[in-house]
Amino acid sequence: MKTLIDLNADAGESFGRWQLGDDAALLPQVSSVNVACGWHAGDPGTMRRSVELAVANGVALGAHPGFPDLAGFGRRAMALSPAEAADACLYQYGALRAFAAEAGARIAHVKPHGALYGLTLRDPDVAAAVAESVTKADPDVMLVLLAGPTAQRVLDSGHRVVREAFADLDYDDNGHIIIEPVPGAKDPDACAQQAIDVLRGGVTSVNGTAIDVDADTICLHGDRPNSPDIARAIRARFEQHGVHTATMREVVATRNR
Amino acid sequence: MKTLIDLNADAGESFGRWQLGDDAALLPQVSSVNVACGWHAGDPGTMRRSVELAVANGVALGAHPGFPDLAGFGRRAMALSPAEAADACLYQYGALRAFAAEAGARIAHVKPHGALYGLTLRDPDVAAAVAESVTKADPDVMLVLLAGPTAQRVLDSGHRVVREAFADLDYDDNGHIIIEPVPGAKDPDACAQQAIDVLRGGVTSVNGTAIDVDADTICLHGDRPNSPDIARAIRARFEQHGVHTATMREVVATRNR
Amino acid sequence: MKTLIDLNADAGESFGRWQLGDDAALLPQVSSVNVACGWHAGDPGTMRRSVELAVANGVALGAHPGFPDLAGFGRRAMALSPAEAADACLYQYGALRAFAAEAGARIAHVKPHGALYGLTLRDPDVAAAVAESVTKADPDVMLVLLAGPTAQRVLDSGHRVVREAFADLDYDDNGHIIIEPVPGAKDPDACAQQAIDVLRGGVTSVNGTAIDVDADTICLHGDRPNSPDIARAIRARFEQHGVHTATMREVVATRNR
Amino acid sequence: MKTLIDLNADAGESFGRWQLGDDAALLPQVSSVNVACGWHAGDPGTMRRSVELAVANGVALGAHPGFPDLAGFGRRAMALSPAEAADACLYQYGALRAFAAEAGARIAHVKPHGALYGLTLRDPDVAAAVAESVTKADPDVMLVLLAGPTAQRVLDSGHRVVREAFADLDYDDNGHIIIEPVPGAKDPDACAQQAIDVLRGGVTSVNGTAIDVDADTICLHGDRPNSPDIARAIRARFEQHGVHTATMREVVATRNR
Repeated sequence: MKTLIDLNADAGESFGRWQLGDDAALLPQVSSVNVACGWHAGDPGTMRRSVELAVANGVALGAHPGFPDLAGFGRRAMALSPAEAADACLYQYGALRAFAAEAGARIAHVKPHGALYGLTLRDPDVAAAVAESVTKADPDVMLVLLAGPTAQRVLDSGHRVVREAFADLDYDDNGHIIIEPVPGAKDPDACAQQAIDVLRGGVTSVNGTAIDVDADTICLHGDRPNSPDIARAIRARFEQHGVHTATMREVVATRNR
Repeated sequence: MKTLIDLNADAGESFGRWQLGDDAALLPQVSSVNVACGWHAGDPGTMRRSVELAVANGVALGAHPGFPDLAGFGRRAMALSPAEAADACLYQYGALRAFAAEAGARIAHVKPHGALYGLTLRDPDVAAAVAESVTKADPDVMLVLLAGPTAQRVLDSGHRVVREAFADLDYDDNGHIIIEPVPGAKDPDACAQQAIDVLRGGVTSVNGTAIDVDADTICLHGDRPNSPDIARAIRARFEQHGVHTATMREVVATRNR
Repeated sequence: MKTLIDLNADAGESFGRWQLGDDAALLPQVSSVNVACGWHAGDPGTMRRSVELAVANGVALGAHPGFPDLAGFGRRAMALSPAEAADACLYQYGALRAFAAEAGARIAHVKPHGALYGLTLRDPDVAAAVAESVTKADPDVMLVLLAGPTAQRVLDSGHRVVREAFADLDYDDNGHIIIEPVPGAKDPDACAQQAIDVLRGGVTSVNGTAIDVDADTICLHGDRPNSPDIARAIRARFEQHGVHTATMREVVATRNR
Repeated sequence: MKTLIDLNADAGESFGRWQLGDDAALLPQVSSVNVACGWHAGDPGTMRRSVELAVANGVALGAHPGFPDLAGFGRRAMALSPAEAADACLYQYGALRAFAAEAGARIAHVKPHGALYGLTLRDPDVAAAVAESVTKADPDVMLVLLAGPTAQRVLDSGHRVVREAFADLDYDDNGHIIIEPVPGAKDPDACAQQAIDVLRGGVTSVNGTAIDVDADTICLHGDRPNSPDIARAIRARFEQHGVHTATMREVVATRNR
């Protein structure tokens, strides 16, 4: 069983007049945060505040680029070409990086959001194009992809990849996560148990199939109504099992030892 | 003191993943509703549900067109020409009308939102262009403008105008309302008192100046956190004073008697 | 060989500062026009001018709703649900209808644009939901779908459907059109020949497969650089073969005789 | 008369399907380029190509952030607060910087576009907030403002400011430029003469008033139909007068000698 893992949260998903998620309660529980960059959520003012909140909580800061679809919150598939997907990630990463720079912080990682994440999973050319583009712009930045064959291929091609698993989403029999358009509240204990399952190397699909998982980070969704409770339940369970959290960079650094 | 008035609410201001306002609690308290049409709030799915809610509550249905500014919720001034402002209102009115038609309902009125409302107030050419355009597309539809000189001018030029006052906004010494980017909770009793003041023919500006008001309808903002409470306080006060509510059309019909 | 057909063009595809297509040269050549409604192209000012141009040319006016994707011109697939697709069509149809009403004109038909057209083709539930929604809002309006099984199914379910074929697009072996993100110039004679092929009941796919086509209308793309030349070539060929053009409504009226 | 000046052009103003300007013909004539960053023009693919074109022509690269108003091309005033304007500039600067980084280039300057430029001119708090924010994110970057009192104030407060004049726009009696929503063709000789006037220290307003101008750079608009001709006319006139062009950084470096 792994005893070191990053715990990351999607956050900064308010937009202008609309508030979403309780980031102030969630961020103290995680080691990394993925901040929305304006296309699916996160207007510039929200981005500024999200960066400040990440810095105040000492949490590693990542960009969370999505499809250009505010009405669909980036959770509706769009047929972007690999080049278009790479440009979308580069654009949004750059925008957040400027806010980070102003706050004296750095972007540690880039993690595509929602259906754009799903596209990197289903289309290896998209995953490769995004990795190529982002690491060319910033050789230090890491790309977060779902732990599995696509992530492994991009990793094997020499890019900095962080392999992710989910504590609060179901898996299908292919080992793909099932994205909910509007996440509801979930049982914190069940999520904590799934996090422990990930650390033990496998989860169970909705149909009962065993899925092998080798992950560096575990994700929580900030727009789930009780996400702070879920995060606290996971942290408590980690403590019981002697699991420590660290940033993605720290976890990845121990990977090949 | 007037004893017949329309009570209207701005509503339908959610957008995709983001919820705003408790329309289900607010609509039973009002006689008219102004539904956001997609440019400042109100994606098509929200529009559909707002129309259904209006029909279910037997409330007169109006379009609430705003500036094309989701990030600013339509509350930041934009320098649209009179023709552009008229086209913006026509476009959004038409979109909502299609949802109304599908539900077997009609659009009773058009009320510009936020800073677009402010533009009709400050620029009589904009008010005239909007009135001209909307009534040409639908001779039955009424245009809601702030009770005052501009509204009177458009009314005098032969257009169907409903003159509006506000229960939950402050007035400046020019008799203009002071728009808040993010409305906070307000004392329901103070709002109810201001509604009664309107019925008596005048309100007091933030500087203590007496402002004459001759209004057909009184507005509440659905995105104010306690708007259902404010609405209930107003309705209770109306009952004490023997004031009845009716739709704009009914109120306007009694205007010249 | 058919001797009566509608010739329709996608037009009104400028947006604000950006001009696209030579609609003034194209519209005199066609009997119907599909006007962009703001989501993939066609800002409100362009919509107003497009309606005026249609009226001035005595051309039947249709709405051309697209995906909410200006950057992709509505030609990138998006996974909208049937309800979302229906709402998208209803919204944009309604917006254009208001401009038509102001000009004293009517909306004769609704034709989804680009990848939304492709979605109606691939997902019969989407086609059915759009037909249901649009005809409920306006029982007179006709829905334009690609001539083939999906169109036939919606037609058989009792909705007003116009079956479309293309003069300037290639077909694949499934009888589906191959959408080009950026249409280039095409040989006007080849397009004219394909139009005649359609009237004779069949086209040839890019792989040489014979595709049966039973169509009421033939489409041209206004954003193809030489679309007016193509339209003139088609009209000349029609004249040679004694083919007359008429609006969709007129063509459909002769369908069951 | 000055003999060293930067010549800059607004470019990269296509958007997706819509092409605008002949950047390939214009860029060889200038020493700096301001690239649209997605809010008023310039989708990510266009940004990528614009950066490549700037690099290929050895031209200094600048960000050209605008209001979030594609339909108005960023030329309609919007009432953004100083903080909102600063965030808008920072966001768009950052996005372009990522494309520059990927191409191995740097962002030399930031120049607000259209009505956002106008806002920095009319509201010194906006100019100060933008300067503060951008230079905090990148101490090397220069901010381009209209040569005049506002630019001088921001310069005096210690920020890197480049003072700009215009060869192809008229001035009013306040020394403010008159922004055209849709720039038409202009006489290249007249523009060349105005460029020389700037180098001599003054231009004449539309009403004949003499306006003092002390500028480091002269601007051309890439969306003016004959902008490459204007650029060539200016370069020819510069040659006649022994004027050399250089990047903003080089010109500014000579300022205090």
